[in-house]
Amino acid sequence: MQNSAGQSEFEIIKRHFLNSALDFQKKGIVLGIGDDAALLDVPADKLLAMSLDVLVSDIHFPSSADPFLIANRALAVNLSDLAAMAAEPFCFTLGLVLPFSDEVWLQKFSEGLLPLALHHNCPLVGGDISKGPLSISIQVQGLCDKSRAIRRKGARAGDKIYVSGTLGDGAIALRAMGLESHLGEQFDLCVETPSSVCQHFFEDAYFKPNPRIELSLAAAGLLSSCIDISDGLCGDLSHILDASEVAAELTLAQIPYSASARCCVNDENRLLAALYGGDDYELCFTVPAKSGKALELIANELGAAITCIGEIVDGRGISCIGSDGAPRKLPSFSYQHFNLAVTD
Amino acid sequence: MQNSAGQSEFEIIKRHFLNSALDFQKKGIVLGIGDDAALLDVPADKLLAMSLDVLVSDIHFPSSADPFLIANRALAVNLSDLAAMAAEPFCFTLGLVLPFSDEVWLQKFSEGLLPLALHHNCPLVGGDISKGPLSISIQVQGLCDKSRAIRRKGARAGDKIYVSGTLGDGAIALRAMGLESHLGEQFDLCVETPSSVCQHFFEDAYFKPNPRIELSLAAAGLLSSCIDISDGLCGDLSHILDASEVAAELTLAQIPYSASARCCVNDENRLLAALYGGDDYELCFTVPAKSGKALELIANELGAAITCIGEIVDGRGISCIGSDGAPRKLPSFSYQHFNLAVTD
Repeated sequence: MQNSAGQSEFEIIKRHFLNSALDFQKKGIVLGIGDDAALLDVPADKLLAMSLDVLVSDIHFPSSADPFLIANRALAVNLSDLAAMAAEPFCFTLGLVLPFSDEVWLQKFSEGLLPLALHHNCPLVGGDISKGPLSISIQVQGLCDKSRAIRRKGARAGDKIYVSGTLGDGAIALRAMGLESHLGEQFDLCVETPSSVCQHFFEDAYFKPNPRIELSLAAAGLLSSCIDISDGLCGDLSHILDASEVAAELTLAQIPYSASARCCVNDENRLLAALYGGDDYELCFTVPAKSGKALELIANELGAAITCIGEIVDGRGISCIGSDGAPRKLPSFSYQHFNLAVTD
Repeated sequence: MQNSAGQSEFEIIKRHFLNSALDFQKKGIVLGIGDDAALLDVPADKLLAMSLDVLVSDIHFPSSADPFLIANRALAVNLSDLAAMAAEPFCFTLGLVLPFSDEVWLQKFSEGLLPLALHHNCPLVGGDISKGPLSISIQVQGLCDKSRAIRRKGARAGDKIYVSGTLGDGAIALRAMGLESHLGEQFDLCVETPSSVCQHFFEDAYFKPNPRIELSLAAAGLLSSCIDISDGLCGDLSHILDASEVAAELTLAQIPYSASARCCVNDENRLLAALYGGDDYELCFTVPAKSGKALELIANELGAAITCIGEIVDGRGISCIGSDGAPRKLPSFSYQHFNLAVTD
């Protein structure tokens, strides 16, 4: 980025955020951008859900990427946390740290927040801009019915385990874009160059994850627990298991993959990507067995793909059934920001 | 910082934040650290105030400073935004970006958040930790009476302008600590070495600003506008004037200075520090003339120093009366993160 205009913090906020398409009016937002704090009027029958994620340049996104896509991804991964709680998006705040002010970059970044902000009726209500190494902090606020917030600790033995969408695409996308993966050198595509269709699919999977808000709001009454898959199925499912004090039995053959993942990655690496890749931002949730059919009907009506991949059982940990029907041991592997990073 | 333990993100959160003294239980916090989002139950007669500030290493604090002090400062400057809205602290979230995990650093940082969190009954309820260049994002949530949130836009001609505490100490502290100031080279102490009493006072002023929560809550019913002074009196008062579409006449001789500022800095630089220095985190507020006495009684009862420094008048901009009683022109100067930085 280049310092093209020597803009001040106030000028940047005024020009790209205040009175932009992003800080649109909404019932319950009493005061948005432009004072010492935003003011929200939370409906009396709702809880306010809040989630803060920080995305650091060259850790959570390539610094050279299109700022429109960086912004889209930053907001999407935050909204995904609201989906995991069955919270309806309410508003968000933005803490932007930039090496220099750059008119074009800021314009594209601001525009990149817009599609999801509008689609989910989630205006920008405040934040902070500072000079420094590029990073993006976003806190999303959502509204949950007081009786319906879904937590990690509700899974019970006998519940079915579902995931939305397809798994592994986020991790595969990194390799398709020529970036390093924390999954190691053996993790690679099985084709020299993906087709342009596949390439495009992977880039969208990485930069435009689809927060499953509609699905989780519609299914909230049925789910016993839910989490979004940011660190890989194993790591995130483990959080549900730990919080609920139960175990899971996964049927590996049921894990849903995209056509592009099947086309460009061999079986072993595809499984690795799904279990340990991260960056998928799909939901993993549990539902009592008797509600499975109702859940599938709801998902079907929404056109949201969901797949049953296993069952909650008594005990602790994750066990697997391989494609051959026999028990299979999981390799031990998980993404930890301080041990490994996408690029470092 | 050194990577002493190769801790994972989860281990860091577990060890230093989850179930620590920081995530204490509080009425209205339905769910704190440890799920996809925190859940708040906001009382029906309150608005939720939210403010997000990002503090970047070597821009907003020296990276080599004691992590206890860095943490204290980070939370204090955020709470100061709540004070400016007359919002009672409710809870906060933390986005911490660290180059490496360091057990001792994290322990001190976590402890540094504690005094203000406890004093203001403001628990940590969630956040994010990532690897990257050191920065701290904090979002504070507060509760305002629906009828009492104080905004910037309520100042009217005839209102008295007050500030809390003393001004200029934040900027003088930077020089006393041997750090660069955006006020330029002519801005310096008039003593070779401050006395240990003065030095200690300045370091406290910088790292332990006192968010004026009690004062603003007690005086909320009287104030017509309020802002916290983070960028210098002129810049922040201007936000009130712009929002309220009025002007201010300041009596420069009334600006309150600390004994240490009087001791270590000459008249001209002291004024510069107060008007353009920033980092004071005192409040600047306006009150109808008829309420001035009541306000001073309230402040007196709290033992909070406040000083009337001028009056709101019709027009736009800031005019001044010098120590000699004659009009004086303000030099044009203001801190902008993208034009100038403490250290770069």
